[in-house]
Amino acid sequence: MRLVTYEIERKVKLGVVSQDEKWIYPLQSLGMDYTTMQEVIEHISDSELQLLEHASGLENSRIEGAAPWSEVKVLAPIPNPIQDVICLGINYMAHAEESARFKKEAFGGERPYAIYFSKRVDRAVATGEGIPSHRDIVADLDYEAELAVIIRKEAKNVAPEQVKDYLFGYTIINDVSARTLQTRHKQWYFGKSLDGFLPMGPCIATVNSLPYPPKVQVQSRVNGELRQDSNTDLLIFGIDHIVSELSQGMTLKPGTVIATGTPAGVGMGFDPPRFLKPGDVVECSIEGIGSITNTVTE
Amino acid sequence: MRLVTYEIERKVKLGVVSQDEKWIYPLQSLGMDYTTMQEVIEHISDSELQLLEHASGLENSRIEGAAPWSEVKVLAPIPNPIQDVICLGINYMAHAEESARFKKEAFGGERPYAIYFSKRVDRAVATGEGIPSHRDIVADLDYEAELAVIIRKEAKNVAPEQVKDYLFGYTIINDVSARTLQTRHKQWYFGKSLDGFLPMGPCIATVNSLPYPPKVQVQSRVNGELRQDSNTDLLIFGIDHIVSELSQGMTLKPGTVIATGTPAGVGMGFDPPRFLKPGDVVECSIEGIGSITNTVTE
Repeated sequence: MRLVTYEIERKVKLGVVSQDEKWIYPLQSLGMDYTTMQEVIEHISDSELQLLEHASGLENSRIEGAAPWSEVKVLAPIPNPIQDVICLGINYMAHAEESARFKKEAFGGERPYAIYFSKRVDRAVATGEGIPSHRDIVADLDYEAELAVIIRKEAKNVAPEQVKDYLFGYTIINDVSARTLQTRHKQWYFGKSLDGFLPMGPCIATVNSLPYPPKVQVQSRVNGELRQDSNTDLLIFGIDHIVSELSQGMTLKPGTVIATGTPAGVGMGFDPPRFLKPGDVVECSIEGIGSITNTVTE
Repeated sequence: MRLVTYEIERKVKLGVVSQDEKWIYPLQSLGMDYTTMQEVIEHISDSELQLLEHASGLENSRIEGAAPWSEVKVLAPIPNPIQDVICLGINYMAHAEESARFKKEAFGGERPYAIYFSKRVDRAVATGEGIPSHRDIVADLDYEAELAVIIRKEAKNVAPEQVKDYLFGYTIINDVSARTLQTRHKQWYFGKSLDGFLPMGPCIATVNSLPYPPKVQVQSRVNGELRQDSNTDLLIFGIDHIVSELSQGMTLKPGTVIATGTPAGVGMGFDPPRFLKPGDVVECSIEGIGSITNTVTE
């Protein structure tokens, strides 16, 4: 089942996508008065989730306020994450190799520990919205398609085999990056955190809608050309490892977003590099979730 | 003028500290109905600030609800920052040198750019509260006394000479760090972001209460022994530079906390290193702001 935050007649609503992917049914019409996806994540019960799952299989005529998915403005599923997004660096082997060419510190021989960094986010960018080029300070704008997981229950000291119970679902992140800023300030934070650098969406696929751990294809295209094409089966550190390790020290609250890293094929991986420029259209897709498309603006 | 968040009779209140440092006057008694320091930062007017400044000079008998500073429980001034705290790495030369001994990547010859990273914070720790030792996963717990600045007005593309106009005030941060986690995961984020790693307080000194840029002594003591003793005059990158540079790419919202880095004298700087253990008492002090004292717990 897929959940969306969307806008219709200037109102922000929450909805469930029909199984035929044609309709969005408002949660309100199903008796749920949540006003934000954060509230849904924190408070929705298993029986409410079952009700939504059931509703997603109904024909649209039976649900009040049903709207065609193609006609509503879909927002980022969590437009304002409660905290900065936690990201994994260098979590696919082929991306480790392409990065080593560009950033000498990125990968040196064996590396037994995950790389965690954070990405500041005031407001996540919806599919269809622009990615600002920041061309005054950025000459090497890059894309990174990633599977992100969303925490459902407060997670503290969670064993790897219990991680699935703490997850709400999955979404797609484009971990937009300014490469020079990322490397010249040593820590990646600034180059990852510029305004508009977090396209997210188009929905949250609930945890039970994908096999666990998810083995799904992650792709990105720039102006229609396939650039990244890998599978989450190839993650160096899987979701169980990541959530368990972080939860040993940090209490992960409901609504926490963790992006699991990007596969090979980013702009800096080409020789010469192929960075984004205004007008470029970037599409990030993940099997079972959907795709987000964003155009780089001036 | 110093502003505090405090608890009295199980209620959280906001107050201004009297100039003789003996009393806290509740903002509510001065006609201001703000419920959080974040609201104060976002909405307080210059004339309200002047009124508070005036009130801080009055004798306590004239203000309803005045409470002795020594008898209230002072909380972190911003108990729940709106976003992760932005931190500066290696921003005093003497600390750069001590760090280079411990972490080979920390500093190599000339470095023309500031190091920015972030520190996750669910809840800032008040003076008097404990710092969890996380001894299951941390063997090298360390302290870092720092001057932090707090943004008042949304800052985007701010020139260095205009930065002061965007500041609300200053507070003290202890940037508690788990050194092995900080370095083995390459990016510092995880080792800086464990639960309870952000003691903050005891107040916010408003921007006009210190000369600008502030030239104030920054000290830390462990079990009474002076460990760090430097002056913000020695910052490699000053407040004007930091806020201006970040604001070129990131819109800094009111309430954003930026910690300006720590001077020499941290535990890892000693040979052999002197890390914190349960029972140790850490005090961080900054001239014109006050001090925060925290005991490391089991």
